[in-house]
Amino acid sequence: MKSRIVVIGANAAGAKAAAKARRTNPKAEITVVDRGNFISYGACGIPYYVSDTVTDLSELMSTAVGVVRDAEFFSKVKGVSVRTRTEVTGIDRDSKVVHLLENGTVASFLPYDKLILATGSSPFIPRVSNVDLGNILTVKSIEDAEFLKERAIPGAAVCIVGGGLIGLETAEALHSKGMRVTLIEMRDQLLPGVLDPEVASVVEKHVREQGVTVMTGRTVTGFAGNEAVASAIVGDIELPVDLVVLAPGVTPNVKLAKDAGLSVGVTGAIAVDQWLRTSDPDIYACGDCCETTHLVTGKKVFIPLGSTANKQGRVAGINAAGGDAVFAGVIGTSILKVFRVNAGKTGLTETEARANGFEVETVMSPAPDRAHFFPGAKPILLKLVCERKTGRVLGLQAAGEGAVDKRLDAAATAITFRATAEQLSQLDLAYAPPYGAAMDNLIVAADIMKNKLSGHARGISAREVKRKFEEEEDFILLDVRSPAEHGEIGIEGAKLIPLGVLREKLHELPKDKEIITFCKISLRGYEAQKILDAAGFTDTKFMDGGILAWPYKYRGKLENKC
Amino acid sequence: MKSRIVVIGANAAGAKAAAKARRTNPKAEITVVDRGNFISYGACGIPYYVSDTVTDLSELMSTAVGVVRDAEFFSKVKGVSVRTRTEVTGIDRDSKVVHLLENGTVASFLPYDKLILATGSSPFIPRVSNVDLGNILTVKSIEDAEFLKERAIPGAAVCIVGGGLIGLETAEALHSKGMRVTLIEMRDQLLPGVLDPEVASVVEKHVREQGVTVMTGRTVTGFAGNEAVASAIVGDIELPVDLVVLAPGVTPNVKLAKDAGLSVGVTGAIAVDQWLRTSDPDIYACGDCCETTHLVTGKKVFIPLGSTANKQGRVAGINAAGGDAVFAGVIGTSILKVFRVNAGKTGLTETEARANGFEVETVMSPAPDRAHFFPGAKPILLKLVCERKTGRVLGLQAAGEGAVDKRLDAAATAITFRATAEQLSQLDLAYAPPYGAAMDNLIVAADIMKNKLSGHARGISAREVKRKFEEEEDFILLDVRSPAEHGEIGIEGAKLIPLGVLREKLHELPKDKEIITFCKISLRGYEAQKILDAAGFTDTKFMDGGILAWPYKYRGKLENKC
Repeated sequence: MKSRIVVIGANAAGAKAAAKARRTNPKAEITVVDRGNFISYGACGIPYYVSDTVTDLSELMSTAVGVVRDAEFFSKVKGVSVRTRTEVTGIDRDSKVVHLLENGTVASFLPYDKLILATGSSPFIPRVSNVDLGNILTVKSIEDAEFLKERAIPGAAVCIVGGGLIGLETAEALHSKGMRVTLIEMRDQLLPGVLDPEVASVVEKHVREQGVTVMTGRTVTGFAGNEAVASAIVGDIELPVDLVVLAPGVTPNVKLAKDAGLSVGVTGAIAVDQWLRTSDPDIYACGDCCETTHLVTGKKVFIPLGSTANKQGRVAGINAAGGDAVFAGVIGTSILKVFRVNAGKTGLTETEARANGFEVETVMSPAPDRAHFFPGAKPILLKLVCERKTGRVLGLQAAGEGAVDKRLDAAATAITFRATAEQLSQLDLAYAPPYGAAMDNLIVAADIMKNKLSGHARGISAREVKRKFEEEEDFILLDVRSPAEHGEIGIEGAKLIPLGVLREKLHELPKDKEIITFCKISLRGYEAQKILDAAGFTDTKFMDGGILAWPYKYRGKLENKC
Repeated sequence: MKSRIVVIGANAAGAKAAAKARRTNPKAEITVVDRGNFISYGACGIPYYVSDTVTDLSELMSTAVGVVRDAEFFSKVKGVSVRTRTEVTGIDRDSKVVHLLENGTVASFLPYDKLILATGSSPFIPRVSNVDLGNILTVKSIEDAEFLKERAIPGAAVCIVGGGLIGLETAEALHSKGMRVTLIEMRDQLLPGVLDPEVASVVEKHVREQGVTVMTGRTVTGFAGNEAVASAIVGDIELPVDLVVLAPGVTPNVKLAKDAGLSVGVTGAIAVDQWLRTSDPDIYACGDCCETTHLVTGKKVFIPLGSTANKQGRVAGINAAGGDAVFAGVIGTSILKVFRVNAGKTGLTETEARANGFEVETVMSPAPDRAHFFPGAKPILLKLVCERKTGRVLGLQAAGEGAVDKRLDAAATAITFRATAEQLSQLDLAYAPPYGAAMDNLIVAADIMKNKLSGHARGISAREVKRKFEEEEDFILLDVRSPAEHGEIGIEGAKLIPLGVLREKLHELPKDKEIITFCKISLRGYEAQKILDAAGFTDTKFMDGGILAWPYKYRGKLENKC
């Protein structure tokens, strides 16, 4: 079938859609238009280019085998015509043409049989005073990257607005260039929407330790300066800055779609069905400009990610070229590396799960990422969230210096197939000492979850224990670690009875008080709870995740903690 | 409920079973007997102790937080009595007692209400001449480890019999101690039963490059020497050796069970149901001594692994103590690190799938393990095996210097839930450049699989291409890489037409001949096949996995290949 397919946008989704359309229909006439100079670049690599981790810009625009994906490549290899510096000014759905403006001057038009919108997203610009001053920029395009790189002067002060994925990656990049970095996040934690507060605190601590100034719960209300920005106004503070990076999130580019009368969903992104068709059956949308379905909640979401864009591009390309493919949805998986910490989530956080009406049980499980005796083992903290009634796994969060990505991917797969904690605990994961413990972190977390769901294990969060101390409740916080461990670091107000002598010293504990046990990770804490239960104590719990998951002040040195 | 639980064997499965039984029934009287001196040690860590990677033996016997799991620990912390150096000489099922021999002399007995067999496995000793000579040993116990470590003398020659997981791990350990290592494997590839030949060849090449002599398809028929072994007889070769390690596999320890009249399954291991009950409902078995169910084939298998032993110990412990837990089965996941290569599988290999009657399609997909522009990205080769009719994922193999464990774990989860290639390709895996490409290796492999299953992509294996050359078939092997890539390495007999000029040079190719395209990884190879198809060529294929998956001789230097 000879048909004319026009793709608007030549990045991840658009480039993939065009390539896949070609393979689906070798005879189609395929044209990609993009308003930018560069096409098909790895936007996710920009922070690494800024930090000189990636030294050559062309690497971001190459295939894995080193072929640069430029217009010539698309023409010769893919048989796809690419027109850069070409803005689409409108879509005439009745005549099925798109109106173009080339190089900002030459108007023309392009007829289509099928149209694919891959218009992407743009950094959200907060409406605050003087946001248009010089040296206030965003991180999205190759031009942004070059600009940022030029201005990343050692010793200069940069303020990053937004403590999400891009804000943090940029903070690391600019810190590595010797800049003094202040990161400002409106919400009272980093990575809101990605991590629950106690998991985010692992990231925040690490980022602070690297020398980044972190201000959470603070809003930038404006900027001051003459031509270039000189200060950021944060409430009553005027923060002197040489550079500002705006990274408070992105918004989908939907103007073209809206102007053409296409439906936009509740999320503000273009509405599509599972074939990625818009409300016009001849027009598809894919990538950052469209919304998708969250497979855990069933709700529409806007979660723009390069991984999703590529998968969607494939589906839109196949369908536009006459094939049949579907894109089911996402489960909200995301991850970042910031300095030496890896952190991410899949499925729902506890906050999200509760907001969606789930009654949940949670487990905090800190442990080394490989056999504890294997050199190079590094700690990771897992937070598992399950539906209480069914045991269904709703989400996993992971943070730490070790391999969190592996646990997230296995959990993402499990969540996709609606696994329960029981099923998660039985997974036949790849085990040898260089890769994990015989009981992988994920399986340990699932086992603890099973203990909790069955009522055998009763946990209480560090946050709740903190509250009890603050409100001077009458309870005993029982440290069951060894005297040596207790001596190194501890929690003020805790009583020490090592697990090994607990059975002999039960008489030292009152039976009429609430007793909350803990150890390093609360496995011994759980053992202690079971010993107390068996001895007739009636109000016992262990503190989730032990001292490794205690995000507050404690006695002793940080470096001894992990 | 007061009840007497006796556990035979105090390693992974037995120790776990005892601990879990205690938590399930705080009042039970729990006794663990073990004939050895050491209990609850990480046997999987032995090669790393031998190589001094793990320097302190006690680390193998400690918990993740550094507590040594000895008899005192079990007594004080777990409330479990452990009797070491105590051999069980018989089980009297009528009277429900086990007969003991302590320290080889003192006979006694122990009554039980529930009995748990965790008798483990023993290295298989081949019945060849003079196998009982000195310095011929196995790798199983702490004593073996100490013995091996003493005899690992730099410059001395060691022959390792068996090219499986333990043989390879031991080869690395002894090579790192400066020994001259010869590895002998009866089958014509390393890791038979774990990897298909072309994936195993990645491991074999790497191991050879490190200086280990590998002999496959060769059998050790005996040994010669006076008191200590002096040579290994391999067919007509007499190989001078100072040390021999026997690692041809393990057999389950079933004598006690057999003598007591318990059922032994087709695999030779103790038969159990999903509650891990033996044919006697008061006797459970767990760990290396029992068989389990392969969840892909539904057949009984004997796959002794520490990860499985721990999970089974938990189930047996709960059930013996009056709880209710099941162990569904395994999917044959295993992994090893040998020198810098990681290799493993989950589910079925192609060989296993065909042997089990599946009609299969396979994909070979080599690619970097993270974004290609991210420093430290390392190549991994995936082999995906699916059922042709349904697209169901049957297995994944992975080998290379990069993160293969992550892909195996995600695939293991997918296989457990009977995912199809379509579902695998839509997984919302954790993406950022430090962790993978926007299209993860697993998703790329699944996409290629979908192209193959739908008939769009037609692959042919390197082995088949090799055969065509050998039998002088009339076909064209078409290299579509760049001239520079072609100049560096190539396959003898291939014709070069770079993909970028293929559309212009179609006239150089005959339409009546079979044309097999390839590139580095055969993504361009696939593009080329599609271009040829569109131009009316009727007999086109691409070579699976490109030159990276060509395990035979080629022109150029190895280091340029990956």
